[in-house]
Amino acid sequence: MYSFLNDYSECAHPQILQNLVAMGTEQNVGYGMDSYCRQAADLIRQLTETSHADVHFLPGGTITNLTMISHALRPYQAVISAQTGHINTHETGAIEATGHKVIEVFSNDGKLSPELIQPVLTQHEDEHWVSPAMVYISNPTESGTVYTKKELEALSSFCHENNLYLFLDGARLAMALAIEETQVTFPVLAQLTDAFYIGGTKVGALFGEALVILNDALKKDFRFNIKQHGAMTAKGWLLGVQFKTLLENGLYTALGRHANEMMAPIRKTFVDAGYAFDADSPTNQLFPILPDELVTKISSKYKITIWKKTDDTHTAIRLVTSWATKKEDIDAFLNDLNNWI
Amino acid sequence: MYSFLNDYSECAHPQILQNLVAMGTEQNVGYGMDSYCRQAADLIRQLTETSHADVHFLPGGTITNLTMISHALRPYQAVISAQTGHINTHETGAIEATGHKVIEVFSNDGKLSPELIQPVLTQHEDEHWVSPAMVYISNPTESGTVYTKKELEALSSFCHENNLYLFLDGARLAMALAIEETQVTFPVLAQLTDAFYIGGTKVGALFGEALVILNDALKKDFRFNIKQHGAMTAKGWLLGVQFKTLLENGLYTALGRHANEMMAPIRKTFVDAGYAFDADSPTNQLFPILPDELVTKISSKYKITIWKKTDDTHTAIRLVTSWATKKEDIDAFLNDLNNWI
Amino acid sequence: MYSFLNDYSECAHPQILQNLVAMGTEQNVGYGMDSYCRQAADLIRQLTETSHADVHFLPGGTITNLTMISHALRPYQAVISAQTGHINTHETGAIEATGHKVIEVFSNDGKLSPELIQPVLTQHEDEHWVSPAMVYISNPTESGTVYTKKELEALSSFCHENNLYLFLDGARLAMALAIEETQVTFPVLAQLTDAFYIGGTKVGALFGEALVILNDALKKDFRFNIKQHGAMTAKGWLLGVQFKTLLENGLYTALGRHANEMMAPIRKTFVDAGYAFDADSPTNQLFPILPDELVTKISSKYKITIWKKTDDTHTAIRLVTSWATKKEDIDAFLNDLNNWI
Amino acid sequence: MYSFLNDYSECAHPQILQNLVAMGTEQNVGYGMDSYCRQAADLIRQLTETSHADVHFLPGGTITNLTMISHALRPYQAVISAQTGHINTHETGAIEATGHKVIEVFSNDGKLSPELIQPVLTQHEDEHWVSPAMVYISNPTESGTVYTKKELEALSSFCHENNLYLFLDGARLAMALAIEETQVTFPVLAQLTDAFYIGGTKVGALFGEALVILNDALKKDFRFNIKQHGAMTAKGWLLGVQFKTLLENGLYTALGRHANEMMAPIRKTFVDAGYAFDADSPTNQLFPILPDELVTKISSKYKITIWKKTDDTHTAIRLVTSWATKKEDIDAFLNDLNNWI
Repeated sequence: MYSFLNDYSECAHPQILQNLVAMGTEQNVGYGMDSYCRQAADLIRQLTETSHADVHFLPGGTITNLTMISHALRPYQAVISAQTGHINTHETGAIEATGHKVIEVFSNDGKLSPELIQPVLTQHEDEHWVSPAMVYISNPTESGTVYTKKELEALSSFCHENNLYLFLDGARLAMALAIEETQVTFPVLAQLTDAFYIGGTKVGALFGEALVILNDALKKDFRFNIKQHGAMTAKGWLLGVQFKTLLENGLYTALGRHANEMMAPIRKTFVDAGYAFDADSPTNQLFPILPDELVTKISSKYKITIWKKTDDTHTAIRLVTSWATKKEDIDAFLNDLNNWI
Repeated sequence: MYSFLNDYSECAHPQILQNLVAMGTEQNVGYGMDSYCRQAADLIRQLTETSHADVHFLPGGTITNLTMISHALRPYQAVISAQTGHINTHETGAIEATGHKVIEVFSNDGKLSPELIQPVLTQHEDEHWVSPAMVYISNPTESGTVYTKKELEALSSFCHENNLYLFLDGARLAMALAIEETQVTFPVLAQLTDAFYIGGTKVGALFGEALVILNDALKKDFRFNIKQHGAMTAKGWLLGVQFKTLLENGLYTALGRHANEMMAPIRKTFVDAGYAFDADSPTNQLFPILPDELVTKISSKYKITIWKKTDDTHTAIRLVTSWATKKEDIDAFLNDLNNWI
Repeated sequence: MYSFLNDYSECAHPQILQNLVAMGTEQNVGYGMDSYCRQAADLIRQLTETSHADVHFLPGGTITNLTMISHALRPYQAVISAQTGHINTHETGAIEATGHKVIEVFSNDGKLSPELIQPVLTQHEDEHWVSPAMVYISNPTESGTVYTKKELEALSSFCHENNLYLFLDGARLAMALAIEETQVTFPVLAQLTDAFYIGGTKVGALFGEALVILNDALKKDFRFNIKQHGAMTAKGWLLGVQFKTLLENGLYTALGRHANEMMAPIRKTFVDAGYAFDADSPTNQLFPILPDELVTKISSKYKITIWKKTDDTHTAIRLVTSWATKKEDIDAFLNDLNNWI
Repeated sequence: MYSFLNDYSECAHPQILQNLVAMGTEQNVGYGMDSYCRQAADLIRQLTETSHADVHFLPGGTITNLTMISHALRPYQAVISAQTGHINTHETGAIEATGHKVIEVFSNDGKLSPELIQPVLTQHEDEHWVSPAMVYISNPTESGTVYTKKELEALSSFCHENNLYLFLDGARLAMALAIEETQVTFPVLAQLTDAFYIGGTKVGALFGEALVILNDALKKDFRFNIKQHGAMTAKGWLLGVQFKTLLENGLYTALGRHANEMMAPIRKTFVDAGYAFDADSPTNQLFPILPDELVTKISSKYKITIWKKTDDTHTAIRLVTSWATKKEDIDAFLNDLNNWI
């Protein structure tokens, strides 16, 4: 049964595995102090056009979020997130487990803006409240939506004026970068955020995320926090090799574009059939709201995620394509869809 | 300037101070193992008509909440609270600092019900989400509203069926117990909750709250947690003497009734003048929504809390009376009010 | 049965209770923002001859330690303590509960010195180890010993050179200050430590400690941390009134001196009888090593603490006198002792 | 420069990489719910001769330790470790960061015994101390020493009698299992511990450890804790494939035996030359105490770890061989050694 469950269902891009196999019994120093990690970090500094970025490679998204956020915040400080933010939903309270409140803000499309954040600042007026100190956003969001450069600029200015760090979760960053009309690029991210991460797990790596810290205030002693949270990979070069592979020759964004392009004809099919969407996603996640009978049919032949009931007879589902999705699988699905709709 | 800021502006009921003075240089063992604490605990077991309750005396409300909640929850478990709940607002993230998420539920009147909680349980479906394990309510709520026995019964049954502990914050419990038509009494609380506390700080004590643990599963090793959080008062008998004084001869509820009664004519005055309220409180907290000019007048002569702007020309304020409020102070305020309205 | 168990067995100095009674129904603002706290803080700044100290009043020793230490340390930093330090023994892991390792150093007399600390710094070389960032000492120590000014100067210089904060737990500070030959005074403490606290609970207060923060780096947002840990007393003036009373007219040091003086003849008696001590304490705690039969006799008529077995036939006990100990009680005990020895 | 720094300097056993490459774009469900993880878990239940073990695959040693220990302990409980234990030294306070004290016990050889643990239990007598609830051991220890079956039996009985969980860190378990005279086997570990882990990172895996939970009390909701700590690998089958490969056909123990055998002639050389050792290790770690000139010579040509100065002219070094060490590399080193000694 073909799976549209997520974008981490397949192993890793062949070039990554090939580069690992080629290592043979070559010896490398541990804990990310090797030359592959150094090269991958240099590459990231080049791509982001910033000489001062600190780059750390961590094994997964949740642990990157909790390590970065707990490093940035003093004990009584909190992070602001959309109610749909990954840290507020699918991370089993990982941020709270490090002692910090996630202040949730209701957002219709999974994105945050100065207008949505200002009331939080107004409310948290003194030491009887937690002190908001960071804004967490995802790009693409958990709803598949993306920020424009302009939106990020507004958010960045607002955060700067209000002493809030801006941290961007890029678990699927490649898919956002592939939407060129947003004008969001690596250098833009480096200019507008205090830290962001370049997701590998969902973009063809075996595992791993590259955390890019721009703000000097967040850099000190970061490796202590990585180690303390069990996030320092002994064979750190595994991450260095993977990110070097992904970021050389534009492979990373190409994989994101591929994932988006595999979803495009599916989106078009639902649009043409007149179905609405739970969120307006131009990326590799799609949230069509469908009649329950159609959901049943799709489920009988494909693995999909039931997202939520939207009314008595309709359900929003989630479909995800990946760096590894093949055109023939999409064609087969479209063929089925056209029969069912 | 007379203060309606809160119910902990005055020192302590004279009988409490007198009983402390009477101790002279009497020696007592420390950490709550003395005879006064034992007597106060026995009194609470009598009043609640339960032989099996564990009773602990802690120095304040926030530390009682964080000690009880962190004791009850496993690391990945969370507590459900109204968005207005004290633990979700005015405790500076104390619960999150112990590692636990507070799942906020929007409530119009500060109260929770099975209907409001059910969606949380539905959403938190597996190990990618925190696991809701406790419901936190306040009675009276932070909005001054109170639960009826029937409402507590429904909540208690729902919690029991769903493996949720029910914990009741009774910082102002005396004021709730004084509203007899709710039929909520000490025995009712003991039957329907897994733990609750009898607030002293806001009912005439110097400081201190009496935590009553009913559910055996929550009792084990509780003193370890008290000590670890710095909540074990060295001169524990200070708390024993105070609660013995408050709970003998009905003083506790009498003080709550007095606080409520001092507020009653103020409420009537605003009602008669046609003003609305931010919450429908029958207790010693009042939240009238007033024209800004009237707020300015009141503020010029009385200390009050500006609660929130409700529209361009109106503001909700908070007024609080206490166990120590004198009738002549209320009369003077009513006199001013009648001139201003 | 007369108790030598500790110095917090009696209620409070009569002047304190009298000042509280005198408040009547006077209204004060809460949370330590009142005029009594301000006056007590001013008094402390005068006594310590420092205009820049921040002063906070907290309800007890453990909570003062955990609030101060967790405020000073980043998540991966640790505090160094003698193995006998209160935070390493009798606080139920309160520091670790805030996420920080207590690095224990073996000390014969409960005191720390540069020589004892240096090996810890050498060992903790990189990010695979916690990062030592604070030294915690008590004065008097838990063994009753005291630091000289010279010892504190050496420790202070060493800490300063090694980027370690120096924090002094003064739960029984009055008893140390009363030993004049050490030349340790309030101004000396303010010059040599980054923070210290003036203990009230064990020196005649009902409860409470006055935390004095000297180092600017430790001051920011401290009230957030107090509130988060449930250490912000609602009726904060209770602490202000008590410390104002203790620190006016030299009452504080006088009470410490009294406690020491009550112990002096007991010490002399044991010395004259040829008994050794587990620690060489000049203060109000005494740790004589006695034949087991003598321990049995003393225990039959007095409450004492069994400290530890020192060999098959001897036991070290702990005796403590207090601000409230009466000369006649000591005379009676000496009389018994002379009969038994 | 050839490295004897550790046993995680080389990538992964070729069979592991080959099996990953063979997956192609095969789709698998995430988070360890796939068939490879199921097969690897079944294999572990077979090898340990226990039908009831829960098996979880985590990405590294530190995160396995902190997830298991924090799951087992209530907030006020502590874990006992040798002072040399990995959790007490090289994990940057990871256990304390989850809120728990590591009680260190001094051990000469890195091993614990009932005799060493009993004094801790005696000392921790009431709620003013943390409550010891788990014993953490490593096999081999951080000193390269190994437990015999008899020693583990004594420890296991002692723990059982004293309500202490026994948790065994098997980061290098293969090297211990390869020492057959200890009679410690997979079934023995399953019978005598409450939980242990089978280390992959140091035995030829890319990364990953297999945690085996035997005690039912430790099993409930463990996946919540894995997820909360960011230890749930999205592409969980990466771990399943690796452990399936390692545990089929005895590869795992064979790799441990190989690492040990590569070290044997080096040990013999130092023994024959009359050098002492910092610990008596029969496994793949060696701690010879050498004259400083010899250390300088070795360091000039090989990467080694300086362990500690033992006197003014001698230094203990650490040498480690691995699953990937080649006989020719050892021969070359022996040749150099014989010239230098």
